[in-house]
Amino acid sequence: MSVTISDVALAAGVSKGAVSHALNGNAGVSESTRARILQVASDLGWKPNLRAKALSTSKAFAVGLVVARDPRLLGTDPFFPAFIAGVESTLVENDFVLVLTSAMGQDKEEQSYRKLARDGRVDGVILTDVRVRDPRIALMQELGLAAVTLNRPEGVSSFPAVCMDDTEGIAGATRHLIALGHERIAHVGGTQSYIHGCSRRRAWEGAMVRGGLKTDLFVEADFTAAAGAAATADLLRRRDRPTAIVFANDLMAIAGLSFAQSQGIAVPADLSITGYDNTELASFLNPPLTTISTDPVLWGRVAAQVLLDQLNGVRGGDIVLPEPQLVLGGSTGPAPSMDFANSPD
Amino acid sequence: MSVTISDVALAAGVSKGAVSHALNGNAGVSESTRARILQVASDLGWKPNLRAKALSTSKAFAVGLVVARDPRLLGTDPFFPAFIAGVESTLVENDFVLVLTSAMGQDKEEQSYRKLARDGRVDGVILTDVRVRDPRIALMQELGLAAVTLNRPEGVSSFPAVCMDDTEGIAGATRHLIALGHERIAHVGGTQSYIHGCSRRRAWEGAMVRGGLKTDLFVEADFTAAAGAAATADLLRRRDRPTAIVFANDLMAIAGLSFAQSQGIAVPADLSITGYDNTELASFLNPPLTTISTDPVLWGRVAAQVLLDQLNGVRGGDIVLPEPQLVLGGSTGPAPSMDFANSPD
Repeated sequence: MSVTISDVALAAGVSKGAVSHALNGNAGVSESTRARILQVASDLGWKPNLRAKALSTSKAFAVGLVVARDPRLLGTDPFFPAFIAGVESTLVENDFVLVLTSAMGQDKEEQSYRKLARDGRVDGVILTDVRVRDPRIALMQELGLAAVTLNRPEGVSSFPAVCMDDTEGIAGATRHLIALGHERIAHVGGTQSYIHGCSRRRAWEGAMVRGGLKTDLFVEADFTAAAGAAATADLLRRRDRPTAIVFANDLMAIAGLSFAQSQGIAVPADLSITGYDNTELASFLNPPLTTISTDPVLWGRVAAQVLLDQLNGVRGGDIVLPEPQLVLGGSTGPAPSMDFANSPD
Repeated sequence: MSVTISDVALAAGVSKGAVSHALNGNAGVSESTRARILQVASDLGWKPNLRAKALSTSKAFAVGLVVARDPRLLGTDPFFPAFIAGVESTLVENDFVLVLTSAMGQDKEEQSYRKLARDGRVDGVILTDVRVRDPRIALMQELGLAAVTLNRPEGVSSFPAVCMDDTEGIAGATRHLIALGHERIAHVGGTQSYIHGCSRRRAWEGAMVRGGLKTDLFVEADFTAAAGAAATADLLRRRDRPTAIVFANDLMAIAGLSFAQSQGIAVPADLSITGYDNTELASFLNPPLTTISTDPVLWGRVAAQVLLDQLNGVRGGDIVLPEPQLVLGGSTGPAPSMDFANSPD
C-alpha cells in the first residue's frame, strides 16, 4: 500500500539519501534534482510518515485534552461528548489526533499536563472548564505548550480564547419569565467555581435587578440530576416559593420538572421551568422544556482550529461565537395568580 | 523538574554515552557499571522519556479508539463518555494515553485505522460498536495492531473479547413484566446492525417465547429520543396496543414515557415502561424508571487492561463481566384490565 523512500529513489534514478534530502528540504541536492524527485514522489502518491516528520520538526501532530471530572458527570453532562466531536471534526481534516487523558484533583491534573509535555505527546492543549484564577494558564506557559481556552479566564492569559457568552441566553430566559408576569424567579446554578457556573448566575441576577426583582432565590447545585432535584425540593418547601425556576443545565431542569410533577405541582400552570443546553431529550419531554440552544460541536470545531492556527504561527484575537438562543417549549407559561402562589401547602 | 541523562552521568561520574547504553540495555558498559548507573538514575528519580523509549521499542504507549458515530448521538448516548472514563482510568495508571479519532462511514473508518497504524500512533485499538460481520477484525490483523473487542463478534476473531451479556438484563425486564400479568409487551429496539441492538431484541424475543407470548410488537429505532418517541406513538396507535414496552436504552424510554403521558396515558397504570443503562436521570423521573444497570466504566477499565496485557505478551481468554441488573422503579406495574387495554381511543 504505502510508497517508501526506496520506491521514490528507484523511480527517480537517485539514491535514497538524495530522496531524503529532497523531501526534507535539506541542502545536498540541486534544485532541479529536488524538483524532479518531488514530482516523482507526488506521482507515486508518496505520503510523509508522520512519526518521521514529527521527529524532524518536533511536532506531535496531536492536541491534548485533560479532563478533570468525575466519570459519572462525564457520562451525564452532554457538553463533553458533543464538544469532543467538534474538536475531532477539525482535527481529522488536518491529520491531527486528539490525545485524551483524565485527571481528578488539581495535583493529578498538573502532573498530566507535565507528562504530556515531557513525553512530547502533544503540540498544544485545549483548556476547558476554565476556573476562576486558573493555575493552568501559568503552567502551559512554563511547559511551552500552545493553548486555547474556552472563554477568557479572569486574570492575565496570553492564550487565545474562544468565547460563547452564556449571559444572553440565561438573561433572555429570565426576561421571558418576567414578561410572563413572574416575579419570584429562582436560579438553580451550577458549580460556582466554574466560570460557566458563575456567569450564568450573574446573568440571572443582572436580568432580575434590571426587572426590579429580588435575587434571594438562588441555590448552588453541581449540574447533576440529583442536585437539581434536591435544589427544587428546597425551593418548593420555602414559604415564598418561586413560580419559576431558571436551571443552569437541562439535566437539573428535567430532574426538577419531574420532582415538581411528582409533588402534584403542574408545569407550567403552577411552576415554569427553563433549562440550558437544548439536549435532544428536551423537546421530547412532557411538557417539552423551554431551554437555551448552544452549539458545543461548533465550539469544539473552532477551538481546535484556533489551536492549529496558533501552531502554524497564525495568531488572531479572541473569537466570539454566536450567542445561545432561547428555545420556547411548553414548560413556561403565565405566572399563576398571586393568591395561588402564596398559598401555604 | 525532570532528570536528564546528563544529570545521571554527572552523578555517576561516567559519560552520557555510558548512561545511555546502561539505560537502554545495550552492550558497551560492564555489568557492574550498568548496575551503578541504574542505581544512580533511580536515586535521582530519572524517568524514561517516552518518546525516546517509543522509538527504540516501536511502542507508542497509546491506545486508539475510532468512533464511528453521528456527533449528535455521541452527545446523547451515555455509554461512550462513561466507557472512555473507564478506559482512561486504566491507561493513566499505566502511563498510556488514549488517541481518539472519529470517522463517519465505513470508508473513512478504514482510513482512520490505516493512518493510526501507518503513523505509529497507537500500539493497539479498542473496537466498540462491533457490527455483524465486522470488517475491522481482518483489517486489524492486516495492520498488525493489537485489538480487543467489546463482546465477541460473529465469525472468526483472534482478538480477546470483553463481554457484557445484555441478554439477561433485557430477559429479566421482560420476565418482570410477564410476572406483573402483561401479555402484549412490545420492544423498541436499537439499530439492528449493531450487536447490542440485535442481542437485546433476541433477549426480549426469547423471554416472550418462553412465556408463551407473541413477538409481533417490535419496532426498530436508533437509540435517539426522537426515534423512541416515534416508535412509542406507532405502538400506541395500534388496535392491539401494548400494555408494556421494553426499550433498548433509557433515552428512548424517557422520550416514550413522556410521549405516553402527553397523550393522557398513565404510567404505569395504563402502560409499563422499562429502559436500559440506568442513567443518572432514570431515578429522578416521575415515575422513576425501571431500568437495567450496566457498568460502562468497568467495561472500559477491563477492556483497556486486556489490551495492555496483550501488548505485554499476556493473552488470556475472553473476559465476561457481571451481568447487568434490573433496577425496579415506578414505571412498571400490574397489567391493566383487558377491557381497558383493548378499548379503542
